[in-house]
Order: sequence, then structure tokens, then C-alpha cells
Amino acid sequence: MTASDQGSAQEAALRAYAERITAHDADGVLALFAEGDDVFVEDPVGAPRVQGRAAVERFYRRAAGEAAPEITVTGPIRTTMGRGAALPMRVRYTYKGRRFEADVVDIMRFDDAGKIVSMEAYWHPARARPVD
Amino acid sequence: MTASDQGSAQEAALRAYAERITAHDADGVLALFAEGDDVFVEDPVGAPRVQGRAAVERFYRRAAGEAAPEITVTGPIRTTMGRGAALPMRVRYTYKGRRFEADVVDIMRFDDAGKIVSMEAYWHPARARPVD
Repeated sequence: MTASDQGSAQEAALRAYAERITAHDADGVLALFAEGDDVFVEDPVGAPRVQGRAAVERFYRRAAGEAAPEITVTGPIRTTMGRGAALPMRVRYTYKGRRFEADVVDIMRFDDAGKIVSMEAYWHPARARPVD
Repeated sequence: MTASDQGSAQEAALRAYAERITAHDADGVLALFAEGDDVFVEDPVGAPRVQGRAAVERFYRRAAGEAAPEITVTGPIRTTMGRGAALPMRVRYTYKGRRFEADVVDIMRFDDAGKIVSMEAYWHPARARPVD
């Protein structure tokens, strides 16, 4: 696979991630992730890591249910010369019965097979805005 | 320092970074960075790391001179609950006598004193666009 093909594949995976999150399709989101104990989510950055495939599955099934997230991609997806890519977005979600909006950048890393091995979400809940 | 103060200080540092890069003020940019051997720049992600304060100084002095970079911040700076923050931007720069524009997200990490200890630039030169 050329560098350009790798970038295109990573970009397609991140667009699918945004669409499947918004569709509350936890199985579809999890299909983009690798297996194993090294997979992790840190959301937001600075919070305790959700470590390992089983914990990541619980994280996305809970998020898809309770938080009802909707992602709007707000700029170009940045692929790189390596395994990482950046996805800028605005996210709406429910917390304690109220709807909020936050500006987020997700940094994803990929394995050789093009599966996501980590997601780190750059945002702070204190900066989220109520939207209704 | 409260979490909110820390976020505000990091955001101010990243706005200063963008302004000083655009002013080709290498000393001003380097004043935002920590000292020591752990400091690094990876630009773009996937390229060899520029490791240690001395190498980072050479990197920014060369960039300020040859590449004549101009940064436009293109969205909210994302601070987090931890040491990392994300700076979305469009960068114009000169390469081999020609002017290019690229979409970039810089991920910065900070030490306890609020100095930058790492900069990782998410972009790919193959996706830059000529602008003249």
C-alpha cells in the first residue's frame, strides 16, 4: 500500500467512525477497532484510560445508548506520514438529561491492517455549551 | 492553578506560538518551549523526531528563515483535562522556492510550568496545495 493509499484508507475509516457514532451504531464503530489488550480510549485526554478491547466495547455501547452522540466533521481530516491521524469535529451529546455541544479533535492511531488501536479525544467537558 | 486556569494558560501559549511562528520570531517561539533532552518535535507525524532542546532550536531557526511560515488558526484550540492540547490551523510555507498551503493539527504537551515539551504536527506534505 502506498503512503497515499494508507492516508486514504485512514481518512475513510475516520469518516465511517463519525457516521457510525452519529447513527449510534456501536457494532459498526467497534468493527473499525483492532482486537487485544493494547487498544485504548482516552476521552477526554487526562481522564483515566479505557484499556483493552473489552473495556472499549463497553465504553462505546454505553456512549451509543446514553449520550446519543452526533458528530459534525468541522475541517479536513489530517492524515500523516505515520500511523496517526486527526479528526476535527463538533459533538452534541446528552449528559444528565441535557444536550451539550463541544469542540473536539480525536487523534487516532492505526495498526498495519488499518484498524484503530487508540483514540484520544482533545476537549474539556467544562468548555461544552448547553444547546437547548 | 485550577483546571480552567491551566486550560487558559495553554490556550494563550498556543495563540502566542501561532503568532510568533507567523512573525518568524524563532526566539519567541523557543521561549515557549521547555529545556532539556526530553523536548521533541515530530513534524510531520511519522517523520524522524527532532529530539532535545538543541535540535529543536535548530529546527525552529531554520524553519523561521527558509520556510517563511504563516499560521492561520482555523478553529477552537482544544485544551483537555491533562497536559495535551490541539491547535487546528492552515499553514503557508515556502519549499524549493514555491509557496504551499497545508491543513495541520499540532498536538502540544506541556510540563508543570506551562512550557511546551512536545509538538507533533498532523499533516502530510503530499496533501499540501501550491498557492501561487
